[in-house]
Amino acid sequence: MTYCVGMRLDKGLVFMSDTRTNSGVDNVFTFRKMFTWSKPGDRVITLMTAGNLGTTQAVVSLLDERMKVPEERKPSILEVPTMFQVAKLVGDTLKETVATQSGTAPTANSTFSATIIVGGQIAGSEPRLFLIYPEGNFIEATDENPYFQIGEAKYGRPILLRGYDRTMDFEAAVKLILLSFDSTLKANLSVGMPLDLLAYEADSLSVEHEKRFEKDDAYFAGLSEAWGDALRSGMHSLPDFEF
Amino acid sequence: MTYCVGMRLDKGLVFMSDTRTNSGVDNVFTFRKMFTWSKPGDRVITLMTAGNLGTTQAVVSLLDERMKVPEERKPSILEVPTMFQVAKLVGDTLKETVATQSGTAPTANSTFSATIIVGGQIAGSEPRLFLIYPEGNFIEATDENPYFQIGEAKYGRPILLRGYDRTMDFEAAVKLILLSFDSTLKANLSVGMPLDLLAYEADSLSVEHEKRFEKDDAYFAGLSEAWGDALRSGMHSLPDFEF
Repeated sequence: MTYCVGMRLDKGLVFMSDTRTNSGVDNVFTFRKMFTWSKPGDRVITLMTAGNLGTTQAVVSLLDERMKVPEERKPSILEVPTMFQVAKLVGDTLKETVATQSGTAPTANSTFSATIIVGGQIAGSEPRLFLIYPEGNFIEATDENPYFQIGEAKYGRPILLRGYDRTMDFEAAVKLILLSFDSTLKANLSVGMPLDLLAYEADSLSVEHEKRFEKDDAYFAGLSEAWGDALRSGMHSLPDFEF
Repeated sequence: MTYCVGMRLDKGLVFMSDTRTNSGVDNVFTFRKMFTWSKPGDRVITLMTAGNLGTTQAVVSLLDERMKVPEERKPSILEVPTMFQVAKLVGDTLKETVATQSGTAPTANSTFSATIIVGGQIAGSEPRLFLIYPEGNFIEATDENPYFQIGEAKYGRPILLRGYDRTMDFEAAVKLILLSFDSTLKANLSVGMPLDLLAYEADSLSVEHEKRFEKDDAYFAGLSEAWGDALRSGMHSLPDFEF
């Protein structure tokens, strides 16, 4: 399983993903699920994946044009003129990959499905954020639905519903998303550290805030503990039920 | 969908269930999912159901011996000597009901599966709490796993993981479980008010604390709002992330 959150704020976009993949409980690996393409001054595009690892790695490789030798690669994702076309390109690549893998699989029982969050900004337009379905179609984040979750989304959803505010700064947004991850990590073994973070500042057209939270990250560990205490004391402060 | 929580405390047992059933989004009904059998001084047994409504209603009817005319009914659930036998009786009834309904269904696409939480106390033993699977087998709550959730369990799990304490009194436990329901109700349309509550005090061998929280329950509405505020102020009190 996987957990990724992509969030739209007035300040820009925030992306966070875990790195655990598993096929059963005894095949557990760490794989990056967040990928960024950038041309400083022109565009920054970040993509996060959930689902079949064979599918998602193939999609990223195709977007990277790894079929070509390195010097001939000119990834379309760095050429197309709008974020809408980026979403369409990713959607088409995903759809074709799922179709190809499903069609040629002789015996696999698992599905080749995957879901992708992609967002970023291309010079001349606003930052935009999309959720892409395995069928290749997609939806865009709006003021009413300003964030997307993929993978194991339920445990971490209540705190996002409660805590999101479009005017929040990156520091508060990262804290909120880390709390959402903390709830998920506590409840589901198949979501695991380290966590990858990228915060994209609107109109910067460059990657300035990137970080990997390792297993022993002091801020995250402290946050998790302080949050447990805050929840308990918050609960105590509420009026008890009376029969 | 459904959401039910059964919890074991030093003080006794607490049960809470929602009442919404739906088959698609335009067939939404209110049905009781919590059922209690009691013989004051001898036993109190409470059961909560999740899954196919035809299955769960059949199980409850069979346990009630509704095949017989009212004056001839002597439900075994009121006669068997231990809670373990109660769990076995419920499990066998559930397994047979699922098997019968599956076997005779000509065209139904839906499954007839269901899951049950049953708990209570019979004079001479401790209060006990069980989770019963559609296959008829079951597990018992222990100190390590002191509560069970059935139905739409994920949204409401993080707060239970954080807030549970076996020494808590009923007032605090009901508050905790209501918060777990609040997170679930906010995230999933198929779980809905009213909520049924039963708190069973160990060794009382009678039903003393029962309540239905209606849609407009003032305590629950106030709790939900105060909890939103407490979460936000708890979050603000935590150290912000710094890049």
